Amino acid sequence: MKPDISPRQLRQLIRNGKWTTPTSGAASGYPQANLVMLPAAAAFNFLLFCVRNPKPCPILDVLEPGRVEPIIAPGADLCTDLPRYKIFEKGEFKTEVEDVSDYFNENMVSFLLGCSFSFENAMLAAGLPIRNMEEGKNVSMYTTDQRCAPAGPFSAPLVVTMRPMTPQQAIRAVQVTTRFHLTHGAPVHLGDPAQIGIRNLAVPDFGDPVTIQPGEIPVFWACGVTSQLAATSAPLPRVITHAPGHMFVSDLRDEDLTIL
Amino acid sequence: MKPDISPRQLRQLIRNGKWTTPTSGAASGYPQANLVMLPAAAAFNFLLFCVRNPKPCPILDVLEPGRVEPIIAPGADLCTDLPRYKIFEKGEFKTEVEDVSDYFNENMVSFLLGCSFSFENAMLAAGLPIRNMEEGKNVSMYTTDQRCAPAGPFSAPLVVTMRPMTPQQAIRAVQVTTRFHLTHGAPVHLGDPAQIGIRNLAVPDFGDPVTIQPGEIPVFWACGVTSQLAATSAPLPRVITHAPGHMFVSDLRDEDLTIL
Repeated sequence: MKPDISPRQLRQLIRNGKWTTPTSGAASGYPQANLVMLPAAAAFNFLLFCVRNPKPCPILDVLEPGRVEPIIAPGADLCTDLPRYKIFEKGEFKTEVEDVSDYFNENMVSFLLGCSFSFENAMLAAGLPIRNMEEGKNVSMYTTDQRCAPAGPFSAPLVVTMRPMTPQQAIRAVQVTTRFHLTHGAPVHLGDPAQIGIRNLAVPDFGDPVTIQPGEIPVFWACGVTSQLAATSAPLPRVITHAPGHMFVSDLRDEDLTIL
Repeated sequence: MKPDISPRQLRQLIRNGKWTTPTSGAASGYPQANLVMLPAAAAFNFLLFCVRNPKPCPILDVLEPGRVEPIIAPGADLCTDLPRYKIFEKGEFKTEVEDVSDYFNENMVSFLLGCSFSFENAMLAAGLPIRNMEEGKNVSMYTTDQRCAPAGPFSAPLVVTMRPMTPQQAIRAVQVTTRFHLTHGAPVHLGDPAQIGIRNLAVPDFGDPVTIQPGEIPVFWACGVTSQLAATSAPLPRVITHAPGHMFVSDLRDEDLTIL
């Protein structure tokens, strides 16, 4: 069990190279964010993609070109304060690094998008099961046949996470997660996976498979991986994202992200 | 009382020059929108302004440069389907026109932002008073001393609408309007006007003063006029907006704008 520390302390450890592992469970209660950095010339269209697809791509913060200090975390530096990054060039994955100061430039724009960790805390508080946590696994993620609304050169299929629960728990989960519209909000589907083009729950496209117990149904939420697929769907000179699970930890509180 | 017609019929009448008056109350149940058109070079920063200030500037639709057919109203033309427009050049008001086909160009981007008409219907359905309607007046609007979060060259004070009601009605109004986060959502303030820099409720900055009855308090909501002040805060070559009350009528339904 990781000791609980403040977001500022955690970012300092990361910046100094003393924390290089995933951020899941660290600084509990403080929203974590997906990161996308891309050229300013494409920033309007990518922001438009996020606005048109708010469930997979809920906007927590967007910075002016060249800026790396988020409004939601004064003093932070997006080039150094995530444990691990992925670099893409012309839509192709190139490498993973622990600092992007040499990759980011004055003509790039940074986007921070909501992540489901915040509503997972609320689900746990409501006594709802999060099977992948129970089994010590990464959440199951699937690429669906649902297309996001495109914007300029950006397009992507909707990627979803799946959590199994009873129908009664699913009803409560709709209520609990609806409040968190900036961390993907209410589910996008429940029940028959085939209705959204998922063939086999035992074979997720990302993450790990989890056990579905008798009487449980799969419940699906929009997933931030969608934003990575969108950002790399256009042949941009360079796109930087966080590495999976290695998120940016903000100074917001989970409750700041609720609609009511 | 205007006859109730479909949004498509209303837009057709407007396009043919047969409807040139305000759209308030027309095609009831279909959300109306504030319009801002501005140069593509400033579109990222203006979209950023809206994202950072979602209560005064809730985004219903944003189009790619040169496009005039909204996603939320297929077949419509933003250059012809509003009854009246205002033209600004270098931040200065120039003229009002009934068609902007000669002013819009391929390098401009159109923004449609939510308007409080939708939650007013919900408030009426909940039995809440809308004093300006009762008195046949325009809603009272005030410029506050609260600053919106700036973005690039865009800045503005928060402009609010005010509706008087009893404290019990105000509590219900918070509940009813919270659902409509895309039409300004919950109030931003209630009670003492001085706390947000309003000196005299009897002298609104826009619209008309209304009667406040004994036992009532003023309740304040963010207002779309904020977006017009922001759009004209930078010396852009040209900005086009709707004329006050002469809104764009979409094919959405009011319930499409609710969070739950």
